[in-house]
Amino acid sequence: MAPLPPGSTIGILGGGQLGRMLAMAGARLGLKSHIYCPDADSPAFQVADGHTIAAYEDQAALEAFAASVDAVTYEFENVPATTAEILARHKPLRPGARALAVSQDRLTEKTFMRDLGIATAPFADVASLEDLKAALSDIGTPSILKTRRFGYDGKGQTRIDTADDAAAAWQAVGETPSILEGFVDFEAEISVIVARDTDGHVAAYDPARNAHRNHILDTSTVPSGYDATVEAEARTLAEKIATELDYVGVMGVELFVTSTARKLVVNEIAPRVHNSGHWTTEACAVSQFEQHMRAVAGWPLASPARHSDAVMTNLIGDDVTDWLSLAREPQAGLHLYGKGDARPGRKMGHITRISPKA
Amino acid sequence: MAPLPPGSTIGILGGGQLGRMLAMAGARLGLKSHIYCPDADSPAFQVADGHTIAAYEDQAALEAFAASVDAVTYEFENVPATTAEILARHKPLRPGARALAVSQDRLTEKTFMRDLGIATAPFADVASLEDLKAALSDIGTPSILKTRRFGYDGKGQTRIDTADDAAAAWQAVGETPSILEGFVDFEAEISVIVARDTDGHVAAYDPARNAHRNHILDTSTVPSGYDATVEAEARTLAEKIATELDYVGVMGVELFVTSTARKLVVNEIAPRVHNSGHWTTEACAVSQFEQHMRAVAGWPLASPARHSDAVMTNLIGDDVTDWLSLAREPQAGLHLYGKGDARPGRKMGHITRISPKA
Repeated sequence: MAPLPPGSTIGILGGGQLGRMLAMAGARLGLKSHIYCPDADSPAFQVADGHTIAAYEDQAALEAFAASVDAVTYEFENVPATTAEILARHKPLRPGARALAVSQDRLTEKTFMRDLGIATAPFADVASLEDLKAALSDIGTPSILKTRRFGYDGKGQTRIDTADDAAAAWQAVGETPSILEGFVDFEAEISVIVARDTDGHVAAYDPARNAHRNHILDTSTVPSGYDATVEAEARTLAEKIATELDYVGVMGVELFVTSTARKLVVNEIAPRVHNSGHWTTEACAVSQFEQHMRAVAGWPLASPARHSDAVMTNLIGDDVTDWLSLAREPQAGLHLYGKGDARPGRKMGHITRISPKA
Repeated sequence: MAPLPPGSTIGILGGGQLGRMLAMAGARLGLKSHIYCPDADSPAFQVADGHTIAAYEDQAALEAFAASVDAVTYEFENVPATTAEILARHKPLRPGARALAVSQDRLTEKTFMRDLGIATAPFADVASLEDLKAALSDIGTPSILKTRRFGYDGKGQTRIDTADDAAAAWQAVGETPSILEGFVDFEAEISVIVARDTDGHVAAYDPARNAHRNHILDTSTVPSGYDATVEAEARTLAEKIATELDYVGVMGVELFVTSTARKLVVNEIAPRVHNSGHWTTEACAVSQFEQHMRAVAGWPLASPARHSDAVMTNLIGDDVTDWLSLAREPQAGLHLYGKGDARPGRKMGHITRISPKA
């Protein structure tokens, strides 16, 4: 299919900060955005050419939305399968349904990796308390019980320290279909933002090293501090996953670097622009947001080369009250998401500090 | 006055590419934009939170607009004085009325420079054919007769090669109040993008060297190729002008570098973000557009330091048909303005190619 010309409209499901930054990046290229979100107060509406306020299950609204745009993408992986089907029937949905199916379900995701020969944490399917007990005797403790679906930022998961905690853990996850994961002894989490275009070309940005606070991403740092071998392997893994999924768009791939052997273990993938790739806005000629919009519009990818070193720090909840002093920092890009209420744990903005490449 | 908090709305007069890029830059900081423009098809509407379609002389519409925003700025210097007065009565107008008055009238502008001891081309007030003849005998030929008001991109001006052409030239400018300017023997035009905040701090980006094609800016290159003395003097002149005007916002200052002595002569000032500053988006942590929105919102200025060398090239008229091959270039930021019709001479986009600092 030919690239969508400038002036085309990209439909974006989800009106949070990722949808907002996607819309702004598309606008650079002369692409219009139409945001679809049930929340009337969505930050992305402020910068988009059009918006629809409707539930993700509203078939009539979805069809009208699809009719008004030239391609559809999304800012979050938990797009209901029926929603995706309705949209894909009318317009190109990028990334496609397979990327959603794999990334929405931790068991499917881990099985997909295993089938590709990519290392993951040891895991087992847990559909009942009996399954959990069997899995614990197999995988051991400490381990983590996670719901297969709808987990993020540490939600929907519980740590198990002894096999005696099985029943309590099974209750803690709401007795829903889950997966038991063994602990990976890792010294760092890194992530790769990889892009793939409609012609199958792939381009990965430099890996970032991520640090968390209260289960939420705190900082992403490039360069990662790992040597060229580790970084090249991380990039190769991410490109392999994108290619196997016949993926179109930007994907975030989180990996653990194991403590002793420095082997790479895939933690999870996100079929969308990713918080750990926000640094690309300041440190590259073309950001992950524009890269995604290029792929969705059928355009060629940009070079992911980096001109600066960077540290991205999230502004969570009350962190954002420091906006005025943050605005005074030299060589920093401050981003505020246009959200009204700085609730604890809410992502309100981020700041990326750059420095010359070391 | 305290800085406007994130979530505030900046009103922008004018809905072209400059208003569009201002709105996008404000959104980075969590500032909303409301665009006021008579053209229903304004590119800036696509990325703004709100817009008003009305004439610049429509007092009721201007007052409703002023009531809905927290501060007002503009993307073009020819804001009618009455419009500026109405808006300034209700909300802070930044830059202020003085900057408009000085920059709208070539005679006022040149007189302002002369009073500051800043070199300009030789000039004379021309209110009649008799004035023009007297001015020609004073200034000589070749020289240029320019209307005092409403000239841009070579419009509203005519070259005079001999004194015999006086009557024809006077007719060519429509017998309107004009200014005769002597030729400056210059080897290059450079420009400085300077910003001044509400506290009087100034910050100038590195000077760019500009090249024109058909009287329209073609390329802006940083570094300019001039030595530190010339660049420092250019910056100092720009900062002095901003300070003398009690200016708030970003201003473009165009200067000629004379051929033999390499002296600086001010050509003109623009009380707004400037085409020759577009390179700052790719080559600095904070662009001229964000810098302007910061000043207008009463925020502190960002550092104008540059992390990369850059060449910005305008895409005029049909140039934009090459968008797909331009999108393939590595280390380049491509900007398309969301305009429908690529008329000859129309600014459709630009591309900024960056490289490591030499």
